[in-house]
Amino acid sequence: MDVADLSPAQARERFRAGERVPTAGWCSGWTQANLIAVPKELGYELLLFAHRNAQACPVLDVGEPGAWSTALFPGDLRTDLPGYRLYREGKAVADLDDVVAEWRDDLVAFLIGCSFTFEQALLRAGVPIRHLDMGTNVPMYRTSVACQPSGTLSGPLVVSMRPVPAALVDVAIEVTRRYPQVHGAPVHVGDPAAIGIADLGRPDFGDPVEVRPGEVPLFWACGVTPQAVIMASGVDFAIGHLPGHMAILDARDDDYRVP
Amino acid sequence: MDVADLSPAQARERFRAGERVPTAGWCSGWTQANLIAVPKELGYELLLFAHRNAQACPVLDVGEPGAWSTALFPGDLRTDLPGYRLYREGKAVADLDDVVAEWRDDLVAFLIGCSFTFEQALLRAGVPIRHLDMGTNVPMYRTSVACQPSGTLSGPLVVSMRPVPAALVDVAIEVTRRYPQVHGAPVHVGDPAAIGIADLGRPDFGDPVEVRPGEVPLFWACGVTPQAVIMASGVDFAIGHLPGHMAILDARDDDYRVP
Repeated sequence: MDVADLSPAQARERFRAGERVPTAGWCSGWTQANLIAVPKELGYELLLFAHRNAQACPVLDVGEPGAWSTALFPGDLRTDLPGYRLYREGKAVADLDDVVAEWRDDLVAFLIGCSFTFEQALLRAGVPIRHLDMGTNVPMYRTSVACQPSGTLSGPLVVSMRPVPAALVDVAIEVTRRYPQVHGAPVHVGDPAAIGIADLGRPDFGDPVEVRPGEVPLFWACGVTPQAVIMASGVDFAIGHLPGHMAILDARDDDYRVP
Repeated sequence: MDVADLSPAQARERFRAGERVPTAGWCSGWTQANLIAVPKELGYELLLFAHRNAQACPVLDVGEPGAWSTALFPGDLRTDLPGYRLYREGKAVADLDDVVAEWRDDLVAFLIGCSFTFEQALLRAGVPIRHLDMGTNVPMYRTSVACQPSGTLSGPLVVSMRPVPAALVDVAIEVTRRYPQVHGAPVHVGDPAAIGIADLGRPDFGDPVEVRPGEVPLFWACGVTPQAVIMASGVDFAIGHLPGHMAILDARDDDYRVP
């Protein structure tokens, strides 16, 4: 069975069994989400950060303190993502297959919209997606764009990049604009240096993809932003997903499409 | 000078000088907001409550802990609203002209969208507004509709009501739908009993208005909801605006209109 045809529950079962793979192209028609879990004492600052930086951090669901499932993610947040990244004192200290041993009773889990959610809509509109064609992870970059701070939290906007044929740039903007809760329209079109990206060939997260002649790099706000902010702000303890290795929700991508 | 023609700064100055009056019709073209200020330790639950009940509690701005002005409200939140309501142990204990003596260093102030903001758009579309014609406050009601809880916070949805001629109901819906951050389209049209309102003539907040033959009562989610929830949940300490006596922001109502 093609991974595009799996249900969210089937995908979560495979990840729980140990498969570690980026989720672009998985579970066609279903919503994917970023995970960031922090101690509840940081919950206010993080939720306010998300509110103030809503294009990068659209909150789709929030778990109760200590809970490892939510209304939209009826699996186990500790095991049912294909990969995790553990942070201590603002540093990424481990990439893990599960976080059962690391989960804490005081953690609140935020599920943040992910641009993988609108990729099917881009394909339907005739916009090719290089990382899907290559079977790799999407490239993601820290930018020189500062997020709006919240309390002790500050840091750079992270973006994902997709090269789009020049003639299709308007289509890609129009299609993704209709999905504001999964990052919406691009935040930047064209010159990577204008947002502080020195080398497209060396993403900070994920895999590089070729930008061919006649193509324009389009940059979308990315839900890895909270992880970059956790690092920039020296947060004591946090758990994120491994970038590109998303939580797959029991929510249709159409649920996040506006007219 | 007609109060509709005042700037937000001019209106705030009059309220600071002691004028206590509902703000419907004031500062045409400018955004009005509900105030709810709570100790920071309750900030997470309240912000999450707002996120989960976004139609009733659209967050327009949030102050830093202890701060009495915000980006959108460059006045003094302790004096520049026309009236305040003070809560202790879940009870409304005083209505005050200012809250200078009551403000605390640990308070975080939330400014929540208000349906007064779209009233000029309704008038421009030919929809009459009875409480403006009467020069009274808008009627508001607790409903039997429960909000989504957040931690210790739970309680009823509060709505404002405007009677609209039957032939203009569709227009009123279409106009207000375009202002999702100031409550958007009505949450209910018609029979008050269907949402637990026994007697339109006895609002829980504000003043009653007549519903004439051929008119349909339209109900919009209301930013007094957090105050009803503070009461229902027995919150120790909170400061709200006096219902209908709003904070007037340095933001245009058009800023909250979507295409």
